[in-house]
Amino acid sequence: MNILIHQVEYRGMPVDILISGNRIVRVAAHIEATADKVIEGAGKAVAPGFVNMHTHVPMTLFRGFADDMELMPWLTQKIWPHEAKMTDEMYYWGARLACLEMIRTGTTCFNDQYMNLPVVAKAAQDSGLRGFIAGLVMDPSMKMTADEARAKMDADMAHAGEFGPRVTLTIGAHAIYTVPEPVLRAVAAYAREHHLLIHMHANETEKEVNDCLEQHGMRPIEWLDSIGFLGENVIFAHALWLSDHEIQLMADHGASAVHNPASNLKLASGYQFRYEEMRAKGVRIGLGTDGNSSSNNLDMVEAMRMASLMGKAWRFDPTAVKAGDIFHTATRGGAEILGIDAGIIAEGSLADLVLYDLQTPAFVPNFNFVSNLVYSANGYHADTLICDGRVLMENRRVEGEEEIYSKVGEVCRQLFA
Amino acid sequence: MNILIHQVEYRGMPVDILISGNRIVRVAAHIEATADKVIEGAGKAVAPGFVNMHTHVPMTLFRGFADDMELMPWLTQKIWPHEAKMTDEMYYWGARLACLEMIRTGTTCFNDQYMNLPVVAKAAQDSGLRGFIAGLVMDPSMKMTADEARAKMDADMAHAGEFGPRVTLTIGAHAIYTVPEPVLRAVAAYAREHHLLIHMHANETEKEVNDCLEQHGMRPIEWLDSIGFLGENVIFAHALWLSDHEIQLMADHGASAVHNPASNLKLASGYQFRYEEMRAKGVRIGLGTDGNSSSNNLDMVEAMRMASLMGKAWRFDPTAVKAGDIFHTATRGGAEILGIDAGIIAEGSLADLVLYDLQTPAFVPNFNFVSNLVYSANGYHADTLICDGRVLMENRRVEGEEEIYSKVGEVCRQLFA
Repeated sequence: MNILIHQVEYRGMPVDILISGNRIVRVAAHIEATADKVIEGAGKAVAPGFVNMHTHVPMTLFRGFADDMELMPWLTQKIWPHEAKMTDEMYYWGARLACLEMIRTGTTCFNDQYMNLPVVAKAAQDSGLRGFIAGLVMDPSMKMTADEARAKMDADMAHAGEFGPRVTLTIGAHAIYTVPEPVLRAVAAYAREHHLLIHMHANETEKEVNDCLEQHGMRPIEWLDSIGFLGENVIFAHALWLSDHEIQLMADHGASAVHNPASNLKLASGYQFRYEEMRAKGVRIGLGTDGNSSSNNLDMVEAMRMASLMGKAWRFDPTAVKAGDIFHTATRGGAEILGIDAGIIAEGSLADLVLYDLQTPAFVPNFNFVSNLVYSANGYHADTLICDGRVLMENRRVEGEEEIYSKVGEVCRQLFA
Repeated sequence: MNILIHQVEYRGMPVDILISGNRIVRVAAHIEATADKVIEGAGKAVAPGFVNMHTHVPMTLFRGFADDMELMPWLTQKIWPHEAKMTDEMYYWGARLACLEMIRTGTTCFNDQYMNLPVVAKAAQDSGLRGFIAGLVMDPSMKMTADEARAKMDADMAHAGEFGPRVTLTIGAHAIYTVPEPVLRAVAAYAREHHLLIHMHANETEKEVNDCLEQHGMRPIEWLDSIGFLGENVIFAHALWLSDHEIQLMADHGASAVHNPASNLKLASGYQFRYEEMRAKGVRIGLGTDGNSSSNNLDMVEAMRMASLMGKAWRFDPTAVKAGDIFHTATRGGAEILGIDAGIIAEGSLADLVLYDLQTPAFVPNFNFVSNLVYSANGYHADTLICDGRVLMENRRVEGEEEIYSKVGEVCRQLFA
C-alpha cells in the first residue's frame, strides 16, 4: 500500500511524503505518484512518532487509583493486592488502553516491562504500534535461582514466533534489589547469547544507591559493572542518581539511560537528571513516561516539557536541555537505543510518523514548530498517526476506541469490586 | 437567559445545574425547569473555571519566538526591540489570542499586568472572559516620580467606566528594581484611596533578593513592609524566594502570592516554591502561568501538574501539594484573592464553569476526576466553557476563532517583518 502525504509542513517548509509498505520512500517539495491513500497536509506539521522508552502498559488500569501517597503504603495497600488479582483479560485491556493513549498522543513505539509477556505482546500487536516487550525477571524475596530465571526467560522467549515484526521481545530485569546476583549474571549471559535487549530499573532513588554502597561498597552501576552486566544491549530506566564514574562506565560499555521526569517528580525520587553530563560523555539517552500508576499519563510531549524545564531549573541555566535536543532524545534517541530505523523523517526510514494540526492556540504564532510542540502543546494535539505504514489515527479518531473504553470499564469493575 | 446543564458528573455523582443570568441558581440531582438552552452533560464532568492569576496577555505574539536563552540577551535582543514597535492592533490581537487559548483550556478569569491597559481591557471585554487588568507603573531607569506615577494611574483609571462588570481595572507595579521607592509609596496610597488591587512581581529570582539585601539590608518583602506597602489588596506574582519572616509578614498583612511554576522553571529562576509553609501560615495562594513569552502556554492544568510534581520533588515528599489542594488553589484560591464569587460550583456563585469530556484516555479509568485532571489531562480537554452565564465554547468550538488566527497572522507579519 502507498500513502501520499500532500504538502505538510516539515522543518518550516511544505513537503510531500510518499510511503510504500512500511517505509518512507520519498520526501520532496512535490511528488508525482499514484497512491492508495492521500492525506492532505495543509495546515498541519509532520514529525517522527515518539519512542516511549519506559512503560508498564497494563498499569493504565491504575490511573488515578491512588495518588499523593508514600511509596510503601501505595505499593503494599493499593497496587500489589490488586495486581495479584489481575486476569489475562485485565492485562490485555489495560495494555490496549495504554496503546490507545499512546496513539492519541503521538507515540509510535514503546519499550515495556511488566508481567504476563504473551498477553502484553498480543495487545501491542493488535494495537498496531511498534512494541518492545520485556517479560519480567523479579523476586522481591531475592530467592530466585539462576535456573529458575533461565526457565522464566525460556518460557517468555518461546512466544517469540507468535507476533509479527512490529513486536520484539526483550528481557526485563526489575532492579538490583529484586533480582539476586546469580540471576543478574544469568540474565546478562542469556541476553548476550540470544542477542536480546535488557530493560532494567537502576539508580532510581537515593536509597537504592545508599543500600548498594552499604552492601557492596560500590554504587549500583559500579556493582553491575563488577559482575559483567553492562553492555550495549542494557537499557537503564531512571538512571537518576548517577556519579561521574557511573556515567563514564555507561559510556564505556554503551549502556543507555531512560529519563522519566514525571514519575521521578511525582514519586519524589529526585529531579537532578544529569542529561548534559551524559550527553557530553556520549551516553545514549531516551525519554519515557513510566507506567500510568506513577506518571499518570503516557504523553511524551509532557515528558519532553518536564525534562527540559526541570533540566534548566535545577542547574539555574535557561539554556540547558533545549527544545531541539529533548525532541531528538524523545524520537531518534530512543529509536537508536532500540536499533530501529525510526525517529526521523527520511527516505528509507520506517513510516512511523505523526501529523499535528496547527490551527490551535498552542501552535500560533508558528515561529518554530519544535519549540511550540515542546513548550506549548501536548500530545493530544496529534491529529493523524501512521505506524509501520498503517494509519492508526486520522482526524483524532482511532478505530476501536469505544470498545476499549467499554472493556476497560468491565475489567475495572471486576478488579476493583 | 437560563441554561440547564443536564446530568453532568460533579464530585462523582450526576447532577443538574441551573444557571440564570450570570449566576448558578441551583445544583440538584434533578431540576425541573424551563431553560433557554439545555446542555447535555452525560459522559462529561463539570468543574469551576480556572483563575489564572498572572498573565501578560499581549505577549502571546511572542510564543516560541525566542527560547532556551539567558534572560538579558532574550530581553534586550528579542523582546524589548519588538515590544517597542507594537501598535494597538498588535496588543489587541495578541490579547485576543491569549483569551482564546484560555477559553480553549478551561480558564474563565485572568489577572493581567502589561502596558496599554485600555486595549487589553477591551480585548478581555470582547472575549467574554472575566479580566482583572493592570496598567503598568514601571521605569527601568528608576527616574519616575510620584507625580508621574499618579498621572499614569489617573490616565489608566479614567477608562474604568468603559467596560462592563466583567472587567476590573487594577494597578500594576512592575517590581522593586523597576519602580522607585517614592512611586511605590504613591502606588500604595493610590490603591488604598481608590480600593484597587495591586499586581506586582516580587521575590522572583535570588538576584532580586540579594540586590535588595545589599541595597537596603532587608529582603524585598521586608523592605516593602518597611515602606508601608503590604496589604490585603497586594498580589505578589512569583513570591518564590521567601524567608520564613517574609511569609509571616505576608500572612500578617493579608498579602497574597501567585505561583507560576512553568515560568520559574523555564527561566531557571528557581523551583522551591514554599507552598506548604505559606498555607500553614495562612498566606493566600493563587496559581498562574505567566506570559506566553516565558511559560509558553496559558494552560492551567499544566500549571497545576507542574506545581504539584515539583512541590513533591524538591521536598522529597510524594504527599506534598496534593491534587485536591492545587486544584483549589487554581480555582477558588484565585477567586478569593480577587474578591469574586467564583471558583466553586455552588448556588449563588458566578456561572464560571467548564465541562470536560470524559471519553478520552486521560480520564479512563475515572476513579477520581480531580486526580485525572491534575495528573493525566491537560487544559485542552475542556469541552464547553461558560463565563458569567454565557457559553463561550461548546464542543471545543469558540466563535471567532478563525478570525483571531487570521488577524494574529497579519499583525505578526508586520511586527516581525
